[in-house]
Amino acid sequence: METVDYIQRDINSIWHPYTQMKDLEKFPPVLIEKAIGAKLFASDGKFYYDTISSWWCNIHGHCHPGVMGAIREQTEKLDHVIFAGFTHAPAIELAEELLKIAPRNLKKVFFSDNGSTAVEVAMKMSFQYWKNIGLPEKENFLSLDSAYHGDTIGAMSVSGNSIFNNIFKPLLFGSFKAKTPYCYRCPFSKKYGECSFECLKDAENIIKLHFRKIAAVILEPMVLCAGGMIVYPKEYLKGIEELCRKYDIHLIADEVATGFARTGKMFAVNHAEVNPDFMCLSKGITSGSLSLGATLTTPKIFNAFYDDYEKMKTFYHGHTHTANPIACSSAVKSIKLFSEENTLKKIERINRKMSVFLSNVKKMISIVGDTREIGLIGAIELVKNRNTKEHFLFEERIGFKIYNMGLEKNILLRPLGNVIYFFLPACLEDDELDYIFSASYDILSAIEIRNK
Amino acid sequence: METVDYIQRDINSIWHPYTQMKDLEKFPPVLIEKAIGAKLFASDGKFYYDTISSWWCNIHGHCHPGVMGAIREQTEKLDHVIFAGFTHAPAIELAEELLKIAPRNLKKVFFSDNGSTAVEVAMKMSFQYWKNIGLPEKENFLSLDSAYHGDTIGAMSVSGNSIFNNIFKPLLFGSFKAKTPYCYRCPFSKKYGECSFECLKDAENIIKLHFRKIAAVILEPMVLCAGGMIVYPKEYLKGIEELCRKYDIHLIADEVATGFARTGKMFAVNHAEVNPDFMCLSKGITSGSLSLGATLTTPKIFNAFYDDYEKMKTFYHGHTHTANPIACSSAVKSIKLFSEENTLKKIERINRKMSVFLSNVKKMISIVGDTREIGLIGAIELVKNRNTKEHFLFEERIGFKIYNMGLEKNILLRPLGNVIYFFLPACLEDDELDYIFSASYDILSAIEIRNK
Ligand SMILES: Cc1ncc(COP(=O)(O)O)c(C=O)c1O
Ligand SMILES: Cc1ncc(COP(=O)(O)O)c(C=O)c1O
Repeated sequence: METVDYIQRDINSIWHPYTQMKDLEKFPPVLIEKAIGAKLFASDGKFYYDTISSWWCNIHGHCHPGVMGAIREQTEKLDHVIFAGFTHAPAIELAEELLKIAPRNLKKVFFSDNGSTAVEVAMKMSFQYWKNIGLPEKENFLSLDSAYHGDTIGAMSVSGNSIFNNIFKPLLFGSFKAKTPYCYRCPFSKKYGECSFECLKDAENIIKLHFRKIAAVILEPMVLCAGGMIVYPKEYLKGIEELCRKYDIHLIADEVATGFARTGKMFAVNHAEVNPDFMCLSKGITSGSLSLGATLTTPKIFNAFYDDYEKMKTFYHGHTHTANPIACSSAVKSIKLFSEENTLKKIERINRKMSVFLSNVKKMISIVGDTREIGLIGAIELVKNRNTKEHFLFEERIGFKIYNMGLEKNILLRPLGNVIYFFLPACLEDDELDYIFSASYDILSAIEIRNK
Repeated sequence: METVDYIQRDINSIWHPYTQMKDLEKFPPVLIEKAIGAKLFASDGKFYYDTISSWWCNIHGHCHPGVMGAIREQTEKLDHVIFAGFTHAPAIELAEELLKIAPRNLKKVFFSDNGSTAVEVAMKMSFQYWKNIGLPEKENFLSLDSAYHGDTIGAMSVSGNSIFNNIFKPLLFGSFKAKTPYCYRCPFSKKYGECSFECLKDAENIIKLHFRKIAAVILEPMVLCAGGMIVYPKEYLKGIEELCRKYDIHLIADEVATGFARTGKMFAVNHAEVNPDFMCLSKGITSGSLSLGATLTTPKIFNAFYDDYEKMKTFYHGHTHTANPIACSSAVKSIKLFSEENTLKKIERINRKMSVFLSNVKKMISIVGDTREIGLIGAIELVKNRNTKEHFLFEERIGFKIYNMGLEKNILLRPLGNVIYFFLPACLEDDELDYIFSASYDILSAIEIRNK
C-alpha cells in the first residue's frame, strides 16, 4: 500500500473524532492495514500493541477467527431485516446469551447501534415508565459529576462537565449531579478506609430532597472510565442501589465500557451484587468487531409498556439497524468465547501481572500520584508533585507527549489528560505484557526526568 | 429451524423497536432466515417482498454478493481500530467515494454509527462553528413541524411533534418549527401551482425575526419520510437554501433516508441543485447491510475548528466504532455498484412502473386521497372521504390492518398511519413489481369495500 499517499488522502478528506485536525500536520495518522490479537499492523511495517483495545471495545483480540467466522457465515444468510414485526435467530440467540450472563432480574433486551444509543434508550424508557404508571413528575436524572455516557445530546446531558460538553450546555437538559467517589482526590478531603462515605451522603442528600422528581440514577459501575479511569469502592455502588430502592428510583448501569469482563467479572455490577433496572451494553458486546448496542431491563419496566395499543404506552424508539443480524452473530460468538477460551482466567493472569507493574511504578516513579486497577483496566495518575497532588497543566499536553512516545515504542497509549491507562484485551500473552509494561516504565521514567 | 420455538423465545426475551409488545400475542413476529434480492425468506417457507427496504436502508438487494463479499474480505484483514490517531484504507476510500458523488462544496467526512448520530454530529458542528467564529448567540435550530430526524434526544428536538416524541418534551431543547410544505393538506389552504409558496414565507418570517439566534436549518430534502412520505416541490428546497445564504444560517440536509438514489438522483438535494453546509448519511450508505453514519461538510466549517490545540476549537465528539473498517468496506462496494450495475437506470424503470400504478389507484380507488412519488419512493394517502379529506381514525389502526393483509399476500407493507408507501430496493425486476403492485391494489380494494 502506498502509505504516504493514503495518509495524505486521509488528511484531505477525513475529519477524525476527538481530534484537533491541525495536530495531524505534525503527527499524521498511522495507517493500519491489518490486526491480529493485540497487534495493529501499520502499512509501513511497524506494529503497535493495542493496549486500549481500540477505545475499550476489543476483548478477544483483533480479527479473532471465531468472531470473524461468525460474521462471514452470517453474510451467507441474512444481512439485515427490519426488526419491527420481524425477527431472526442471531438476535434471539444473542438476547438469550445476554440474559444468561446478566444479573438475573434482567429479562428483556432492546437493541440499538452503539453505546450512546444504549444509554439514551435506558433513559427514555425510565422516563416513560413513570409517565406510564402515573408518576409523570419523575422526569429528572441523577448522575456523577465526572461521568461520561456518550456524545449524543441525551447522553451528554447526564455526563459530567468537561471540555467535551461545556460549550454544548444550552442544548442539554438539566440533571442532578452528585460528587464523584474519587478517592485519590476525595471531594470531601477524606481518606478511603477512614471515611464515612461522604460521597454516598452527597448523593443521598440530593435524592432525599428531589426523589419525587427523579426517574433514575445513571452511573458507570465500579469505574468512571472517560472521567479518568476512576475505580471506586464497591460499597459506593451498593449504596447507590440501596438508595434507589429506598426512594423508588431506577438504577441505570452504564456497562458500555465495563461490560464483558473488562473489570474481571462479566459485568462490573457483579462486584457488588447489584441488580440494576437497566443495563447498557455496547463496545465489547461484539468483541469490538462491529457497532451494536443493547439495553437490558426488567419485567416490571417492560410490563408498564405492555398494554392495548390504544392506551398509548408503547415505547416509540428505534434505529434502522436495530439488531443487525451480522453484528448479532459476531456478538453471540464473542460471548461463547468466554467459556470456550476460559477468558476470565486469562484476565486474572493479566491482572496479576498488571498489579505488580502498577505497584512498582508507584514505588519507583516520583510523578506517579495514584494507581488504580480492576480486571483489565489499570490507571496511573501523574502529578507534578506527589505531596500537593499538583496537576500537570493542560498546555503541557503531557498525555499527547506520552501518546507519541508510546507509538515510538510500539504501544498505543492514549492518556486521558494526566492519566495513563491500560484497557487491555484478554488475548495478551505474558511476553507481550512484559514488553508493554517495560516500555511504559521507560516512558514514565523519561517523563519523570523531564519534570525535574 | 424450529420456527414456533424460536418465535416464542423471541417473545420471551426481546423488546422490539416501535412495537406495542402486546400486539405480538396475536401477531407474533415473522422469523426470517435468509434474504436474497428483494425477498425475505421466513423459516416457515413463506417469503415476503421487502417493499420498504427494511426501514429504507437496503438499496441493491439483500445479501448482494458484492457487498457481502466486501464484508468477508475485510474480516480477513482488519476488524476495527480506534479512529483517532489511526486510519485505514476502507475509511479513506469511502470518504473519497462519498465526496465524489456529493455536492462539490462538501469536502470533509466525519463518520459515526447511524442516522441519529449523523444528525447529532451535524447539529453539534453547526452549533460549535458559531461559537468558534465568535457568534455564540447562534445556538438554535429551525426545522419542519412534520420532520423526523431520529430518536436520540438531539435528533428528536428538531423533529416534529408526534406520538413518537411528545411525552419526551421535557428532555428536548426548544427549536423553531416552520410549517411543512405538505401540498395535499396545505397548512395555508393553497393549491400547488396557484400558491405563492406561503410555506416558504412562513420559514422566512421566523428566520427574519430570529436569524441572529439561528445556527442552522435542518430538513429532509424533497421528502419528509417518517412524516408521511410528504414529497414537496423542489422550489421549496431551493428557497430554503436561498434563505440560509441570505441570513447566514447553515443548511443541514438530512439525507439519511433519501441518500443513495432513493429519490432517483444520488442525493435528494441534487433535484434542486442545492449545496448544503452539512449532509447527513446513513441507511443506504452500506446498502443497508451494516450500521454506519457519515456527516459531510465544507472546508469553511472545517477550518473554523482547525487551530492550535490550546485554542480549544476542537470538535470533541466521537463514537467507539467511528469508521468501522468492515462497515466502510461494505459502503465502498455499495457505492461502486451504482456504476457497475447502472442502478440509476434501474430506478428510472421502477419509477415509471410505480407511476402508472399510482395514477391507477388514484383513479380507481375512492379512499385514495393523494398519491406522491419520487424515485423509488411512492406514497398513497388514504382518506375516509375524498372531498373532505377526512382521516381514518387512530383507533381504526388501518395501517396495521394493511400490514397484516400485506403479509398474507407476501408483501411487507408498513404504512405510516394512513399513508401506505413503497420505499423500494433498486433490484426489483418487472415481474416482481407487477406482483407487488397488483397485490397492493387488491389490498386497497378490500379496504375500500370495508369503508363503504
Ligand atoms: C461508559 C460509556 N458509555 C457510553 C459510551 C458511548 O459509546 P459509543 O462511543 O459507542 O457511542 C462510552 C464510550 O466511550 C462509554 O465509555
Ligand atoms: C431522515 C432520517 N433521519 C434520521 C433517521 C435516524 O436514523 P437511524 O434509525 O439510523 O438512527 C432516520 C431513520 O428513519 C430518518 O428517516
